[in-house]
Amino acid sequence: MTNLAALTNHQIRLAARPVGLPTRDGWSFTTEPVVEPGAGGIVIKNLSLSLDPAMRGWMNEGKSYIAPVGIGEVMRAGGIGKVISSSSPKFAVGDTVIGGLNVQEYSAFDEMSIKRAGITKVDLRIGSLTQWLNVLGMPGMTGYFGLMDVGQPKAGETLVVSGAAGAVGQTVGQLGKILGCRVVGIAGGQAKCDWVVNELGFDACIDYKGGSVKDGLKAHCPNGVDIYFDNVGGEILDHVLARINKKARIIICGAISQYNNTTAVQGPKNYLSLLVNRARMEGIVVFDYADRYHVAVNEMAGYLKAGKMKSKEDVVVGLDTFPETLLKLFNGENFGKLVLQVAAE
Amino acid sequence: MTNLAALTNHQIRLAARPVGLPTRDGWSFTTEPVVEPGAGGIVIKNLSLSLDPAMRGWMNEGKSYIAPVGIGEVMRAGGIGKVISSSSPKFAVGDTVIGGLNVQEYSAFDEMSIKRAGITKVDLRIGSLTQWLNVLGMPGMTGYFGLMDVGQPKAGETLVVSGAAGAVGQTVGQLGKILGCRVVGIAGGQAKCDWVVNELGFDACIDYKGGSVKDGLKAHCPNGVDIYFDNVGGEILDHVLARINKKARIIICGAISQYNNTTAVQGPKNYLSLLVNRARMEGIVVFDYADRYHVAVNEMAGYLKAGKMKSKEDVVVGLDTFPETLLKLFNGENFGKLVLQVAAE
Repeated sequence: MTNLAALTNHQIRLAARPVGLPTRDGWSFTTEPVVEPGAGGIVIKNLSLSLDPAMRGWMNEGKSYIAPVGIGEVMRAGGIGKVISSSSPKFAVGDTVIGGLNVQEYSAFDEMSIKRAGITKVDLRIGSLTQWLNVLGMPGMTGYFGLMDVGQPKAGETLVVSGAAGAVGQTVGQLGKILGCRVVGIAGGQAKCDWVVNELGFDACIDYKGGSVKDGLKAHCPNGVDIYFDNVGGEILDHVLARINKKARIIICGAISQYNNTTAVQGPKNYLSLLVNRARMEGIVVFDYADRYHVAVNEMAGYLKAGKMKSKEDVVVGLDTFPETLLKLFNGENFGKLVLQVAAE
Repeated sequence: MTNLAALTNHQIRLAARPVGLPTRDGWSFTTEPVVEPGAGGIVIKNLSLSLDPAMRGWMNEGKSYIAPVGIGEVMRAGGIGKVISSSSPKFAVGDTVIGGLNVQEYSAFDEMSIKRAGITKVDLRIGSLTQWLNVLGMPGMTGYFGLMDVGQPKAGETLVVSGAAGAVGQTVGQLGKILGCRVVGIAGGQAKCDWVVNELGFDACIDYKGGSVKDGLKAHCPNGVDIYFDNVGGEILDHVLARINKKARIIICGAISQYNNTTAVQGPKNYLSLLVNRARMEGIVVFDYADRYHVAVNEMAGYLKAGKMKSKEDVVVGLDTFPETLLKLFNGENFGKLVLQVAAE
């Protein structure tokens, strides 16, 4: 067992609710001793944290699908780490685990909070550390259940996905191809577009920074859009609404274009296309599918092993870089699933 | 048989595509002789026409769920009339029929166009002329299939319906009560609100002209909103989105607040409530359910007969009043299903 008394836990806490982009002065940097959590508990050395657009929502006050992070609390984050101390019969020192570790170097859980934080063991034989935060983790689960349960894709249909090179987008697009859909991505920049087409096998990708999304949709979706997996909201959602087919399904997974607004969210002015096309727009929150994660993990692990699915992570090293690293999500600088490496293995 | 040669058919044609509200100068008033339609055809003397918000959409150019009315064409309208001449084996002189009769005094159909116009016989023993344009007609079918198929109501759920005193709204709310829902209407003016509560049995009704819809929803939907049947769009849709429950269903039937906009449609800025609540917004077009109209008609006729359902029609007399009568829909002056009586029986 590690000598916990010798360790210091660096943490990053929410100091103030951000207005617009969350900048460094909205965080506080604290240290704490690492203490034994008591009988049945575990201590985890955090290795890598998942940085996701949803984190921006957790910083806001108000009712949502999950309680907001309180002012002064360690920022919420999923992550992967190694058990360094355990009096739980379910975990042994050396186990690799995933769950709600938050933005800090060490996470200690008593018996009750292990379950609340969703700490589970991971098998590094079926996916790497970073794949467990990506295609086998929350983004992968979000993409899988959003596409499968809400999108209900059928072979031959046209699937459009925004944030195509992001964690959720890459999963959705590749799953779509496996299912026989025509898959058109929307991403920012030629490099990302080239990657999803050349490496992931998307049929096409529209660079929203380099040209007209409207024209791109027209060119690449000659048969209209049957499924739209939306991670971005804003004008792109309106452009897609203008091209949906009868009985189309729009999965509302996120709206990253709107998260840092200081004015009201931009509502989709083309929403009456839902009426004209008897189409559906439906929200998804991944936690609803927790009892089926294992099914999706097994399926996706099979695709990874068979080479039918690839993954890309954008790994930034250093807990202290958290404030600026998080912003990469909102200016579109991340290329692949954004991971903050807190410690090497 | 009537002597057709003695008759003149007064018609109202779309003269120009309206910008904003469709005013009298956008219509042309023409006359034509009534001519025998040939073997297998029928001539109908039109009695009452159904005036509906959807008509505004049919006047616009562009792709929709139905082709726009062409400039110079007789305005499209559903209606009910009496067969005055027939060489069709399916219809006898004296039959009362319903279908696409358009805004004119007489409608002649050859064998092929009888089907295209959806002309069918109606049984006046199960509903009056105006009920056949209301709860047993298109508005009733729209309310029935929108609520049942898209809304999927369960007893004990809270159902909110806008345009509550209108043709679709009165059907939806009364069906909701029959199914055991808590039903809250939204309508314009105290008289309409009193009527839907006192006569139709809604649990409450919010007068959007007399107070805050937001406060009204808070007061009358203490357990949130499970189903919202939307006929109006605009700000009211946003207010309801702010109060929906997990897995709520929003039926997009219309958006009368937006039909005469000269600027862009107001998109629902609270649409991310769909994400937070894993809720669904879905459009409905009644024509999709044509093969099941008879099921709904039988069910609703049963409710009418049993006194479980009432109906109210707002009947205006005179073909020539059509332009101004239609506007009653858009300023909310109609009280009940708006009917234009072209001829007495």
